[in-house]
Amino acid sequence: MTDKAEFKAALTANAEAVDRVLDELLAETDGHENRVMEAMRYSALGGGKRVRPFLVTQSAALFEVDEERALRAAAAVEMVHCYSLIHDDLPAMDNDDLRRGQPTCHIAFDDATAILAGDALLTKAFEVLAEDATHQDAKVRADLVLALAKASGHQGMVGGQMLDIYAEDHELDMPEITRLQRMKTGELIAVSCELGAVLGKASENARHRLHNYAHDIGLAFQIADDLLDVEGDAAEVGKQTGKDAAAGKATFVSLLGIEQAHTQAQLLSNQAQEHLEIFGEKADSLRALAHFIVNRRS
Amino acid sequence: MTDKAEFKAALTANAEAVDRVLDELLAETDGHENRVMEAMRYSALGGGKRVRPFLVTQSAALFEVDEERALRAAAAVEMVHCYSLIHDDLPAMDNDDLRRGQPTCHIAFDDATAILAGDALLTKAFEVLAEDATHQDAKVRADLVLALAKASGHQGMVGGQMLDIYAEDHELDMPEITRLQRMKTGELIAVSCELGAVLGKASENARHRLHNYAHDIGLAFQIADDLLDVEGDAAEVGKQTGKDAAAGKATFVSLLGIEQAHTQAQLLSNQAQEHLEIFGEKADSLRALAHFIVNRRS
Repeated sequence: MTDKAEFKAALTANAEAVDRVLDELLAETDGHENRVMEAMRYSALGGGKRVRPFLVTQSAALFEVDEERALRAAAAVEMVHCYSLIHDDLPAMDNDDLRRGQPTCHIAFDDATAILAGDALLTKAFEVLAEDATHQDAKVRADLVLALAKASGHQGMVGGQMLDIYAEDHELDMPEITRLQRMKTGELIAVSCELGAVLGKASENARHRLHNYAHDIGLAFQIADDLLDVEGDAAEVGKQTGKDAAAGKATFVSLLGIEQAHTQAQLLSNQAQEHLEIFGEKADSLRALAHFIVNRRS
Repeated sequence: MTDKAEFKAALTANAEAVDRVLDELLAETDGHENRVMEAMRYSALGGGKRVRPFLVTQSAALFEVDEERALRAAAAVEMVHCYSLIHDDLPAMDNDDLRRGQPTCHIAFDDATAILAGDALLTKAFEVLAEDATHQDAKVRADLVLALAKASGHQGMVGGQMLDIYAEDHELDMPEITRLQRMKTGELIAVSCELGAVLGKASENARHRLHNYAHDIGLAFQIADDLLDVEGDAAEVGKQTGKDAAAGKATFVSLLGIEQAHTQAQLLSNQAQEHLEIFGEKADSLRALAHFIVNRRS
């Protein structure tokens, strides 16, 4: 899978499969409370490259996990990702009107519905992981829940968002920015690979390699994101660009400079691919993703 | 435990034990992200009668569950309850300044921190349930997660909150109000008993009786709440009263009238206690709670 077209096709096929599973899991109801489900579906089925779900399914495939099970775990991670975007976009947080080229959830619905839709997506993620259909072994199900909760809670993603707010009024240095980004976006990327390993009851060694891979691409992904915020076109990126600079926020680009940031992202991508050596050809799609992450334009 | 003083002492002892466990589970950290934990602790350790945790520990005690395990599950339910209060109090939702006699979370901190604190408390609840320390049997842990997620998500508490918003502009009839309240507050009360039964690997019959008990006290609790909103004193209740009437919202009281509402609450409380017959004296504290719920003044 060194071919770019082949990788893009695999990414698209995965996104379609994830959308199908999300569509099934987020079933509409009859009552007036269905408005919250409409908002959940609006945000969760609103497109996106589905990078995190791809990491789940491709990591799971290394250990020959049943695809439908991997897709349920992938959908759960995407629900957490989508909830975080909904809450992040709220007026009280980043106050964004545009996401994936569409009105954000609170614009399309209202603030209260957006808060509830985020809450319900987060809750649904854990419900899906805990259900029998995700894995016959209850220990695996409990471990999936535990891993996702740790990655997305106060010591992970939410903590990173808190740091991001702190960074609005404080100048962070390189180690602090790295920690912020590891928590805010890196942990959810890392747990995407981890869920695949948990589903596949992977060895400690395999788990460790995958973790290192995920850590490197997580950072590379964020540097690329910062670069897109500076170099990207809003229409292509699908959200407002230039926001970090306007807010005076320190980013990898403001600290490293554009050229050095590109070099660093490339370095991390290469390093990530090296961690996959023990998996041989089976890890080609994860290698291609590491390449894609630093060369994407949106 | 027919004695009122004895019951009050048991409720207080339980609240203290739950506070101790919450204090341990919500440990502060070194980083600047600790602000979100401060907000979580502010809301979760801010007092309250701890009715839901009491239901967990007393239900668990019916099946001789280890107390520390029951307290972890009780703390998880309380985290979900507290997160829902934080988000419910936000300006975009109920816009309340006062809770348990104290400034609400977004007043004491700010809206963004309150949103994140709610998110993190919800996430932490599932983390706690999925951890080994909650039960040695992974099937029990996964079932705890599943039950709590179902009760608090779009088909439960969050769906009820969505209906509550719908009710601001629509006149609901008695069956609709009953459904709204069952979802908004009843499901979390019911799952509190259910977690005790799951921890104790209770029989289908015992589970069923407890479920019926919880269903009845949930409704009785809500009718009593509506009565407090009409008859209560803000200083004693610890939150603004008269809000429902001011908002023109239909409640059990507006639909039934004060006298009939009192009668109905009492009837449900009696009925709830009858469901506990098979448990004998061991269920005395749950019986006392059913009595307390309709006779409380805050």
